[in-house]
Amino acid sequence: MSSKLVVTFGEIMLRLAPPGFERFLQSPGFVATWGGGEANVAVSTAGFGLPSSYVTVVPSNPIADSMIAEMRRFNVDTTRIVRGKGRMGIYFVENGANQRPSKVVYDREYSSIALAKPGDIDWDAALAGATWFHTTGITPAISESAAALAIESVKAARAKGITVSCDLNYRKNLWKWGKTASEVMSELVKYVDVVIANEEDCQAALGIEAGVDVHSGHLDHDAYPASMTARTF
Amino acid sequence: MSSKLVVTFGEIMLRLAPPGFERFLQSPGFVATWGGGEANVAVSTAGFGLPSSYVTVVPSNPIADSMIAEMRRFNVDTTRIVRGKGRMGIYFVENGANQRPSKVVYDREYSSIALAKPGDIDWDAALAGATWFHTTGITPAISESAAALAIESVKAARAKGITVSCDLNYRKNLWKWGKTASEVMSELVKYVDVVIANEEDCQAALGIEAGVDVHSGHLDHDAYPASMTARTF
Amino acid sequence: MSSKLVVTFGEIMLRLAPPGFERFLQSPGFVATWGGGEANVAVSTAGFGLPSSYVTVVPSNPIADSMIAEMRRFNVDTTRIVRGKGRMGIYFVENGANQRPSKVVYDREYSSIALAKPGDIDWDAALAGATWFHTTGITPAISESAAALAIESVKAARAKGITVSCDLNYRKNLWKWGKTASEVMSELVKYVDVVIANEEDCQAALGIEAGVDVHSGHLDHDAYPASMTARTF
Amino acid sequence: MSSKLVVTFGEIMLRLAPPGFERFLQSPGFVATWGGGEANVAVSTAGFGLPSSYVTVVPSNPIADSMIAEMRRFNVDTTRIVRGKGRMGIYFVENGANQRPSKVVYDREYSSIALAKPGDIDWDAALAGATWFHTTGITPAISESAAALAIESVKAARAKGITVSCDLNYRKNLWKWGKTASEVMSELVKYVDVVIANEEDCQAALGIEAGVDVHSGHLDHDAYPASMTARTF
Amino acid sequence: MSSKLVVTFGEIMLRLAPPGFERFLQSPGFVATWGGGEANVAVSTAGFGLPSSYVTVVPSNPIADSMIAEMRRFNVDTTRIVRGKGRMGIYFVENGANQRPSKVVYDREYSSIALAKPGDIDWDAALAGATWFHTTGITPAISESAAALAIESVKAARAKGITVSCDLNYRKNLWKWGKTASEVMSELVKYVDVVIANEEDCQAALGIEAGVDVHSGHLDHDAYPASMTARTF
Amino acid sequence: MSSKLVVTFGEIMLRLAPPGFERFLQSPGFVATWGGGEANVAVSTAGFGLPSSYVTVVPSNPIADSMIAEMRRFNVDTTRIVRGKGRMGIYFVENGANQRPSKVVYDREYSSIALAKPGDIDWDAALAGATWFHTTGITPAISESAAALAIESVKAARAKGITVSCDLNYRKNLWKWGKTASEVMSELVKYVDVVIANEEDCQAALGIEAGVDVHSGHLDHDAYPASMTARTF
Repeated sequence: MSSKLVVTFGEIMLRLAPPGFERFLQSPGFVATWGGGEANVAVSTAGFGLPSSYVTVVPSNPIADSMIAEMRRFNVDTTRIVRGKGRMGIYFVENGANQRPSKVVYDREYSSIALAKPGDIDWDAALAGATWFHTTGITPAISESAAALAIESVKAARAKGITVSCDLNYRKNLWKWGKTASEVMSELVKYVDVVIANEEDCQAALGIEAGVDVHSGHLDHDAYPASMTARTF
Repeated sequence: MSSKLVVTFGEIMLRLAPPGFERFLQSPGFVATWGGGEANVAVSTAGFGLPSSYVTVVPSNPIADSMIAEMRRFNVDTTRIVRGKGRMGIYFVENGANQRPSKVVYDREYSSIALAKPGDIDWDAALAGATWFHTTGITPAISESAAALAIESVKAARAKGITVSCDLNYRKNLWKWGKTASEVMSELVKYVDVVIANEEDCQAALGIEAGVDVHSGHLDHDAYPASMTARTF
Repeated sequence: MSSKLVVTFGEIMLRLAPPGFERFLQSPGFVATWGGGEANVAVSTAGFGLPSSYVTVVPSNPIADSMIAEMRRFNVDTTRIVRGKGRMGIYFVENGANQRPSKVVYDREYSSIALAKPGDIDWDAALAGATWFHTTGITPAISESAAALAIESVKAARAKGITVSCDLNYRKNLWKWGKTASEVMSELVKYVDVVIANEEDCQAALGIEAGVDVHSGHLDHDAYPASMTARTF
Repeated sequence: MSSKLVVTFGEIMLRLAPPGFERFLQSPGFVATWGGGEANVAVSTAGFGLPSSYVTVVPSNPIADSMIAEMRRFNVDTTRIVRGKGRMGIYFVENGANQRPSKVVYDREYSSIALAKPGDIDWDAALAGATWFHTTGITPAISESAAALAIESVKAARAKGITVSCDLNYRKNLWKWGKTASEVMSELVKYVDVVIANEEDCQAALGIEAGVDVHSGHLDHDAYPASMTARTF
Repeated sequence: MSSKLVVTFGEIMLRLAPPGFERFLQSPGFVATWGGGEANVAVSTAGFGLPSSYVTVVPSNPIADSMIAEMRRFNVDTTRIVRGKGRMGIYFVENGANQRPSKVVYDREYSSIALAKPGDIDWDAALAGATWFHTTGITPAISESAAALAIESVKAARAKGITVSCDLNYRKNLWKWGKTASEVMSELVKYVDVVIANEEDCQAALGIEAGVDVHSGHLDHDAYPASMTARTF
Repeated sequence: MSSKLVVTFGEIMLRLAPPGFERFLQSPGFVATWGGGEANVAVSTAGFGLPSSYVTVVPSNPIADSMIAEMRRFNVDTTRIVRGKGRMGIYFVENGANQRPSKVVYDREYSSIALAKPGDIDWDAALAGATWFHTTGITPAISESAAALAIESVKAARAKGITVSCDLNYRKNLWKWGKTASEVMSELVKYVDVVIANEEDCQAALGIEAGVDVHSGHLDHDAYPASMTARTF
């Protein structure tokens, strides 16, 4: 057994999708799975054999319980998950076909993680024994209190000498609570050792201007080095 | 074609249930249907051949659209449905088996109907041509503004000389926003011509004390007449 | 709301297909949907926001009722559908896989639309308020009486000043009742404003010889202009 | 191996039913099985170990082929099945629930067996080696030519000294082609050794008046002996 | 958190059943779950909030891994499960319908637990911290080495002062390896504190003659006290 | 009807795969079909209209019966199948997705075919009337007795003057019982008229060194002629 322990922190949502290429409720049913970048990382590291624990805030109800059971199935420790107010976030996905694009409908407002705030998680307990801490740029995007909680998380991890990684994962549609991604993430990355990002993330979440137009439809490989130039935050 | 028109008003929720007798997310899927007493009445009266229209408040998204499409399938007019803020209410149902009881998890907070308030529905349009208006005691239970909207609905219908029916349908777990069912429903039934109720509804929603213990596990037929004694509200 | 109204007219069939790539009845089940070019157009125009009505002839039974309900779901007006003798047409489809080709088995004989004849549809009612009328070359192919009914339909639309479109949609296997596609469609297109066709349709349904061999396996782009040369019918 | 051979003859239909207690096409799918009393008997006798062969008339298409394959699965000989004109009969079944009754929609007109007539089956081949022949009162009910074919079948079996059984199985809704069940079945049973019947069958199909009202909702056991009194046809 | 720990030990098998009331492979599919009395107890005690660990012997393959994942889902500790030679036991179940009885086909020979023998499990590790140990009469029935291992398990638990329970669960069809249930279980129960049994178990597995005929089809309540008379093993 | 008769001989296994791209037991279910090269050939030749019979050894249980029923469905004669000791072989298949490779878990030990030995099959009966006999290199790979039985089969066919074909189908993971593929197959092909093989089969199963590296990831077309040089065994 390794003495390593990976702890990841962030939102997880119930993903509801019609079967196959059906439209929403064409058949009376949804395929239901769980989606969240930080949870995915915990499942992956557990699958590779690293002891892994996933931290989030969810309500005290059987739907949240079933998510916790699913994480346990993948050998992820769930004993550090915190119960809070609010609901499980949900998103609906309809697969596109031919000219018909895919659709995503978010129903994530008032989720427990969106309502969570600094102080709601006992970081001493949540990070006990951790050697690596991972979070993303999704959680800070969903609400002001969640952003403050995310910054609290990396500060706590840094203070304990834990290696901290963050996948910037910029989502334009999420940043609606007041501050920009750049304002928040520039602060957050001060406590991060390993940043995972593409060129859009660098521009939008860190304000590193590299002249990349991510909507142009093709990759501008030459712009990558500029994005990646060392910088101090 | 009849010159009659039934209009029903109230909440509708997405009902998500695991297949058969499975536990929540034992398989990655939910059977998805729509549930709401007022919508059920509109579907039934349409099925019996009466022109029927269903009025509610839902968000502008494809999940709400699929509910509207499902109502149209049953020949219910949906053109009077109003789009508002908030989300579609959801409830999760797990069928019990043997000693294991069924479970219901409500995720209906912040629904469009809960956020709706007097003035959000143009009752002249919603009730145009109506000869019968039906609502229930569910909508007033979910929020203070919804209660005010429900009272506004029956007042508007009464003012237009439309026959008004109300299924009291008392739900103990819902009345949490401040007032009791009795305080609100005693007001609402002043504008109702036909009340549908069992003895528990009479006691809890109208304050008609009939000495019935609805948790005793058997029906007290002798108490019914007392519940049904004429009374003025 | 637009003052436009699209009316489409033609056959619709129940489409029964085994799940996935299974052979007929490998599992005891069929995926069941509805297929018909004119119905598809009505669904599409309704989806784009144009008031749309679909006209056809179907039997008075619950299977036909479920087709009508499905059309309503897509916001297509179904009140102009006529009930007649005969049955719902059915076709069975087995998806091919690798070297195994797909199979289609038609069971459309004696369908209500095949038995329908001029006079069975009250075109004044069916076309009331219409600004566009659409039909195809499928309906005239299925029976002599249906062909006469199709010609009656475009004549009625033309007489009312409605824009008429027709998708020639030539199907070699269908024209078995006596006359050729060319004999019938040359007459029908006299009342059509917009013809939709590929080069095979032009040759087979209108007799415009353009030297195209549609079984050669490749497209002869140069032959298109000849097919499309203006011609009077 | 036994030297016995059971041959059964009659109609088989494709049975299409929505899954569970769903309404027609609530989900886009049907559970598809095969139903026919004479085929059921062949499957049963094969299951009990008796060599069994099923004779019917079906079209030459892959749907009929899949029925034949299904019969082979149950070890029923299918090499005596005859291909003819017409289509496979179909019936749709919707399971009732609570107050909602079940629904059956027949789509069996123009089936191959309904179109079949005396001479279409080579009874020397169909009955070769048979020691028992079984048919029912369904086939004679569906068309005049099928009735003539059914009478031909029992005459041929009787002439060969084969034991003949017939399940009268009276279906009021089927006898629509001109003659009554009583007229036809009185003739057919002259060539039958073993008649299977309940009291309604005796009355309706054989004209044995026993004073039983089959719609009264309860069984009149005392009337049974009268129904069963020996009689000569 | 409780300082209690329940450890259960025994066989678990993959249970494969056709969907609904279908026959084996009527549709190409099986519903797959896991079945084993000792695993069920661990799931139940975990569900009631008691720390619970399940011990068994399974092969090192992904099918066994998926069983372990399923146990983790129910919050059962699986870290004490031992990997051994052999295969996962399987049983096939076909649900009966009407007169057709259910069928069970066992495919459990050469399972890892059947091949396991004393010494294969480190009981100091498997029972570390346990306050209750539970096993059944199934494991001793499947092979001579498994019987010896089962006796070893209760001896080890008794030696550590752990409360030991055993569900006799007599299965006539299993005891085929040489000794009778009575010979083996009389020895095993010497180390058991709590025996769970019905009257058949008492007779067959412990040789307590109470004059009960378990095949008579009705319960002989008067014989129960005799079965339960205190006895020393 | 042809006077030809194809007889094929070899193992068949129950193939259990999760639905779609799910992991093992992500949903509680498996898609269940049957897999075996020799059975596939019999199904194919029957499908092309050649009388075909499949010979194998399976246990006397309903799972084996369902395989036999499935073969009958495809018009393959199953009356020459022999019942023996042991079990049905099983293999589990998980479809890969993206970077995740497919997984196959074999559970074929102690299968009836693996336990079968020379003398278990009456080749006079099994080959009666056969004009072509087909087997593969799979059966000899699974056990010493099965290899001896396979050699017995081709000797018997050759002695009767039947054309014999063999698909070498080398599987590195199977040859574990002692002898190499080359030792056994060099003997077996002495009685074979038509050998089906790729270059790996030639090298591994027949010892024809052609300098082909089958793990190199590309085909070496130039090495084929050397593999195919005439040789005497």
